[in-house]
Amino acid sequence: MLVVKIGGGRGIDLDACCRDVAGLVGEGRQVLVVHGGSHLTNVVSEQLGRPPQFVRAVSGHESRYTDRETLAIFTMVYAGRVNKFVVERLQQLGVNAVGLSGVDGRLWEGPRKSAIRVVENGKVKVLRDDFTGRVERVNVGLLRILLAEGYVPVLCPPAISYEGEAINVDGDRAAGAVAAAMRAGTLVILSNVPGLLRDVGDESSLVDTVRLAEMDPYLVLAGGRMKKKLLGAREAVEAGVSTVILADGRKESPVRSALAGMGTVITR
Amino acid sequence: MLVVKIGGGRGIDLDACCRDVAGLVGEGRQVLVVHGGSHLTNVVSEQLGRPPQFVRAVSGHESRYTDRETLAIFTMVYAGRVNKFVVERLQQLGVNAVGLSGVDGRLWEGPRKSAIRVVENGKVKVLRDDFTGRVERVNVGLLRILLAEGYVPVLCPPAISYEGEAINVDGDRAAGAVAAAMRAGTLVILSNVPGLLRDVGDESSLVDTVRLAEMDPYLVLAGGRMKKKLLGAREAVEAGVSTVILADGRKESPVRSALAGMGTVITR
Repeated sequence: MLVVKIGGGRGIDLDACCRDVAGLVGEGRQVLVVHGGSHLTNVVSEQLGRPPQFVRAVSGHESRYTDRETLAIFTMVYAGRVNKFVVERLQQLGVNAVGLSGVDGRLWEGPRKSAIRVVENGKVKVLRDDFTGRVERVNVGLLRILLAEGYVPVLCPPAISYEGEAINVDGDRAAGAVAAAMRAGTLVILSNVPGLLRDVGDESSLVDTVRLAEMDPYLVLAGGRMKKKLLGAREAVEAGVSTVILADGRKESPVRSALAGMGTVITR
Repeated sequence: MLVVKIGGGRGIDLDACCRDVAGLVGEGRQVLVVHGGSHLTNVVSEQLGRPPQFVRAVSGHESRYTDRETLAIFTMVYAGRVNKFVVERLQQLGVNAVGLSGVDGRLWEGPRKSAIRVVENGKVKVLRDDFTGRVERVNVGLLRILLAEGYVPVLCPPAISYEGEAINVDGDRAAGAVAAAMRAGTLVILSNVPGLLRDVGDESSLVDTVRLAEMDPYLVLAGGRMKKKLLGAREAVEAGVSTVILADGRKESPVRSALAGMGTVITR
């Protein structure tokens, strides 16, 4: 099985990603799609007069501040607009896609962070109205019955907390969790950079390959978004996924290029 | 099987509807939920600076003018915000709900109207950029495998055209099509009126029962929204659904009240 994570950053060619997925499905590959939606969520939030807010946790991670109203906008864009656009496009290409969020059938379940400690103007502050968490359990059974019937699942956040609340989770790490739970051979993570870069300002400084044992220094160097991709990749490889490829979602044939090794290939 | 259509009009108590559905599922009833979202779509459209536009077809039907941008907003609200809110609420109540639009797995398929003839200022005008249609086929197989595994499907527009385009369809008629295709015994259609009224301005003028043979005069009298409910009800009963109940979604225990006969009961 191949899991393709299509990022939600600016510049990613959703249509090219869908064409590649359809081509691979047509060749008989079993594919599962996960997608993001962060750029469009920012655009719609602005249009609705609620500009996005990002907070920096004490751990250094930056994340979207997701109060209940932000969660509603986030869910509209991810599970409504982007998810159904991808499903529609795949259907037009002959793929019988079914779109689900992590809330549906408790597909992605995990703990909500009851409080997050953030740094604001150098001071530590505790936020308690944030609906963010992480995926600990994947409903493999639901995905298997859909795949067995020939459907291609198209998944996106939000996930669901153990208490049944919709929660914002990182899409790359959720894709890693799905790839691991489904024992996928390959996970492709497409974003708006060519892969892991030695120098963020220089797209030619691509790191071709990373072995699990070599990852730690990169985790220290990597910025927020890339750090989560590396964490998702590590979790997937540790759980038995043979290859994770971080690749460019902005160009022609993004999935096929990634499978041909263009990008950063992460293995055990 | 019981199909519950929860309307999307102003004042409908989504939470009370979900509690009733959860109670019935807990008692072992097989339930399938269909929902609308028209009022919230109007609100979000206004907030996004694209106030809703309604057109009156030559046939007299009024419908939402759904160009591609309107369809995107419509899909965000129906398949994103309302659908996932209902799924989340049902999950909190112990129901393993799975939300799907009619696009997913080609669940609701039918023809898109390639052109609609509308009346504007007394003149007939042809609109060709409208994404509206109707449901002719229901993917019964997908619903059956979900139900067999204990999931409660939560369905909403858009549907999908034979050409693979997302299309706006009337939720009441789609609910009728689902009830018919699934050979449901009962279809409850909840809205923000007590049922079919002899006098639209007088909520006490409820019509208790309508036999199929008596329906024609009501179809002539009924206004736009109620006309579609009656059409959905007629299609369902003609296809073998024993009872369709048009009832009030604004009060406590809306589903149980409807099943107790409070509303307009339509039978063969």
